[in-house]
Amino acid sequence: MTQEIERKYLVNSEQYKSLAHQAVRIVQGYLSSVPERTVRVRIYAEQGFLTIKGKSNESGLSRYEWEKQIPLAEAQALLALCEPGKIDKTRYLVNYQNQLFEVDEFYDENQGLVMAEIELETELQEVVKPDWLGEEVTGDKRYYNSALTQKPFSQWNR
Amino acid sequence: MTQEIERKYLVNSEQYKSLAHQAVRIVQGYLSSVPERTVRVRIYAEQGFLTIKGKSNESGLSRYEWEKQIPLAEAQALLALCEPGKIDKTRYLVNYQNQLFEVDEFYDENQGLVMAEIELETELQEVVKPDWLGEEVTGDKRYYNSALTQKPFSQWNR
Repeated sequence: MTQEIERKYLVNSEQYKSLAHQAVRIVQGYLSSVPERTVRVRIYAEQGFLTIKGKSNESGLSRYEWEKQIPLAEAQALLALCEPGKIDKTRYLVNYQNQLFEVDEFYDENQGLVMAEIELETELQEVVKPDWLGEEVTGDKRYYNSALTQKPFSQWNR
Repeated sequence: MTQEIERKYLVNSEQYKSLAHQAVRIVQGYLSSVPERTVRVRIYAEQGFLTIKGKSNESGLSRYEWEKQIPLAEAQALLALCEPGKIDKTRYLVNYQNQLFEVDEFYDENQGLVMAEIELETELQEVVKPDWLGEEVTGDKRYYNSALTQKPFSQWNR
């Protein structure tokens, strides 16, 4: 059980792709998508994970997180139990000024959404922003992956 | 991931207590109490467990079950994230005619409810019933522990 502190941003160009040193396909679903207690089943590059997150604090930056690796076959079986609406995305890892950005390019119902996350040591840590980083959406619950299974990006009024 | 086949009965006397060879205090809560995908956090005699169950099949006897032991401190932290309404009970283990019955005596909001479960090898296996076993309630979703956190026994119209 750890406290996860992170900031989230939209991404406004494809520049990040040529800067990425790794790209991993992720498929995930939710046994619970309630923000107070999300239970996520994830297949990350053929590895299974079960992750439980509590609700975020007032600033929206910080959430409890508990995670365990599980065998791929178990993750596949648990994915089949999940709520309708899976998330399918590619995660690009991009280093910029000694910071690691995880950039998620979404597919299917969330096609068109590209989002960058950076994990911080403290809530006060400054983020040095690369050019391709757009609007900050930290704490905006619509952008939670769990929310995107319920109301995907393609169904938003924009 | 295994298929769990079990029958459930009400218990109509306290006879089981003197026949039990073990009694264990159990406290549990739910991260999801939806019958299609329950996620349970349990502390069983100072050991933590995370258990995920799918929905029961048509006969109500059989459910998918996935379980992992987790450190006690993690179970306690996850219990704090659970939905309101914990289950607190003592589980008595009773052998009868080479069958193992787990008899749960509930406390708090479910005081007065005593329920016996027996796990079976196949759906066709016959149960030899001891005197203290009452009405069968297999498949009756009101008696699911997850349902008892939402609508406890003390609030039933009986």
